Formats: sequence, structure tokens, C-alpha cells
Amino acid sequence: MADLMNNDVFLAFSTYATIVVLKMMFMSPLTGYFRITRKAFSNWEDTAMGKKNPEDRKKMLQTNPDVERVRRCHQNDLENIIPFVVIGLLYAFTGPDLSTALLHFRVFVGSRFIHTVSYVLALPQPSRGLSWVVGMITTFSMAYRVLTTALLL
Amino acid sequence: MADLMNNDVFLAFSTYATIVVLKMMFMSPLTGYFRITRKAFSNWEDTAMGKKNPEDRKKMLQTNPDVERVRRCHQNDLENIIPFVVIGLLYAFTGPDLSTALLHFRVFVGSRFIHTVSYVLALPQPSRGLSWVVGMITTFSMAYRVLTTALLL
Amino acid sequence: MADLMNNDVFLAFSTYATIVVLKMMFMSPLTGYFRITRKAFSNWEDTAMGKKNPEDRKKMLQTNPDVERVRRCHQNDLENIIPFVVIGLLYAFTGPDLSTALLHFRVFVGSRFIHTVSYVLALPQPSRGLSWVVGMITTFSMAYRVLTTALLL
Repeated sequence: MADLMNNDVFLAFSTYATIVVLKMMFMSPLTGYFRITRKAFSNWEDTAMGKKNPEDRKKMLQTNPDVERVRRCHQNDLENIIPFVVIGLLYAFTGPDLSTALLHFRVFVGSRFIHTVSYVLALPQPSRGLSWVVGMITTFSMAYRVLTTALLL
Repeated sequence: MADLMNNDVFLAFSTYATIVVLKMMFMSPLTGYFRITRKAFSNWEDTAMGKKNPEDRKKMLQTNPDVERVRRCHQNDLENIIPFVVIGLLYAFTGPDLSTALLHFRVFVGSRFIHTVSYVLALPQPSRGLSWVVGMITTFSMAYRVLTTALLL
Repeated sequence: MADLMNNDVFLAFSTYATIVVLKMMFMSPLTGYFRITRKAFSNWEDTAMGKKNPEDRKKMLQTNPDVERVRRCHQNDLENIIPFVVIGLLYAFTGPDLSTALLHFRVFVGSRFIHTVSYVLALPQPSRGLSWVVGMITTFSMAYRVLTTALLL
């Protein structure tokens, strides 16, 4: 283990992977915030806050555009950040230069923060689309190094 | 590799990560069980069991509250268990005390089992909400150690 | 780190995990392809391609069966490929025979390619169901080795 914590690329990966996963986790309380302020829930047992009669509670079992938007953003995080974490970990083990690795990690994490802001605020395209593409290309670039360095089929 | 298998914190992480990922995977057959018993499918090709005429099959392309509930529980697992696995692995590499690490792993895995039972059985709140919060706090606590031990930005 | 890159099982895991994660990532552009060709979007800001009047744009905020099918396939990938990656990594650390490990990795990755083709082309069951079960069993088999080799509760 000790050697991993002495490896700068692994330390950098730890740092950026943790930051971007925390960002992804932040989507959960954000969804909760929109569910409560928009009174839009999926589960009957979630509508019991305050003393509500059944009719009022039934109305809270609805979908809301703001809630759905945050949920799509969260889903997009799952679809993109998890591949980054998996391929980034394997990439760190291929022994890249620290500066090259940092470039990959910083560009990816930056692109995902831009993606989240673009999505949640519904900024005009192509802000969201471009940030998504930049993140994909960064992950592909790391995957290319993994497959050319560590191939055993 | 050998040193990893001699590291107790890593062994504990392996054990608890595997258990909680198996729990997450269990949601798939559970969804299948509800789809079959509630006759509620998403795909036309899934409605062909038994000799059915097209009219009967079309009726099986429906959503069902029990199926949707299990699917939401599965989605919540993806959103919470995957961050635990990623941050827990990095946390194990920071060399925490075994007892502290075990506390984190046990609390998280326990909280997710309670969460699943609360969700699938639709127990009154705050059982599900509290178990979700406990899991989040556990993961944040590990992330805090990763970022304070292994920071390289 | 160096010892990891000299470990054949870890190299094989790197290769197959990267391939199957890239396959999962491919579902995103495939979804985009169906969204554009079927003119079916979720976000208002995505409907601005070309000069559209608001009425035409509103019609593009619709669900489409082909888009939903690809999205379900992507979701199934998240639910199955991520457990494989987590448990497969821990499995690689348990020091299995290379030939046994390769068998697991190849069967899993093959099963997921068959699953994707079956899902996207809507092939008759049980092609999709069987390929899903084979992938699950492969992951269970690796989880069994992890829990019997590295148990620390």
C-alpha cells in the first residue's frame, strides 16, 4: 500500500476522483431540495411532512420539470463519471507523467462542473453538449493509454 | 499484489464492498420478480411468455407501482453504493486504523440494508431518509480523510 | 505500482474492464443518434438545432420508443457492468490463475456485447435474458472467490 501513497499520479487521481464523486453525490440533496420546494414526490410515504389530508398528499405525487432536470443531470453523471473513475484508476497504474495525468484529471473534472451548471441552469446549447464531449474525449484518451500499455486479451 | 492481501483494511474493504454490491445486484432479480407477478414489462419481446395473443401482450406493456418502487430503490443504490465503493477504496489506501475503517464499512453497509428494506416495504419516513443520510455521512467522512491525507491538486 | 503492471491477471482485468466500460460509454452517442433522428428530446435547449419556431420545438419534447429502448439498455449496463468492474478488481487481487480469470473476463464481456445487440435490435427472448443471466453468474462466481479468499468481517 505504502508505495501507492508515495506515487504522485495515484495521489492526484485520488484527489480528483474524490472531488468529482462528491460533486455527483451533491445531486442527491439538490434533487431533494427541488422535490420539497416544488412539492413533487415519487413515494406516498414522502408526502407526510406536516399534517396533510390524503387529498393534499395525493397531489404531491407528481413529476416536476425542475426535479426531472436535476435527475437527468445526476443520471448523466453516473454515465460519465463512473467510466472516468474506472478508466482513470487503471490509467494511473500505467505510470503516465504527472503533468499529463494532471491535465487529464483537471480537464475532466472541470468539464463535469461546467456540465452540471449548464444542465441545472438550462444554459443554451452547446455549453452542455461541449462539456459532455470534452469529458468523453478525456476518458477515451486515458482508455487509449490503458489499452496500448496494459493489453492482455 | 501480495501486500494488498496482507492488509487488513483492504481485506475488510473487499468483504464489505462485495457484500453491498451483491445487495445492489439483488435488485435486478427482485425487479424481474415484480415484473412477472405484476405482468408489467417495458419491452414487447418480454411479453411473449406463454401463448399470448397480441391484445393480451399489449396490456402487459404497462408501468406498475411495485415495479417502479423497486427500480427507484435500485437507482438510489447506484447513486450511493458506487460512491462508497470508489471513495472507500481510496480511503483504504490512506492507511486508516482497522477499527475505524471497519466502523465506516459496517455502518455504511448496514444503512443500505435498512434503506432497501424501508424502500421496498414502503415503511413510514424517516426510516428510509435517515438510513440514506447515515450512508451519505459515512461516505463523506471517508472522503474527508482521503482529501486530507492524499491531496495533490 | 510496478508490480501491478507485471501481474498478468491485473493486466487482463485492465484490458477487459476498459473494453466493457467503453462499450457502456458507446450507449451515450447511440442515444444521441436516436434522439436526433427520431426528433425526441428531454430538454427545451436541445430542440434549437436549425431555425425552429416554438411550436415545432415543443413537438420535439417527446419520448420515442427507440430512444427509451437504448436508454434502458444503458441503464442495464450501469446495473451490471459496474458490479463486474468492482468485484472483478477485487477478484484480480485474490491471485486467481490467469486462465480462470481470463475465462471469467471473456465470458462476462462477451455476454454484455450479446446483451446490447439483443436489446437494441429487440431480438426475441431469451437472447437478452440469457446473456444477462450469464453475466450475473460470472460476477457471482468472482464474488464467491473474493468472499472465500479475502473475508474480514
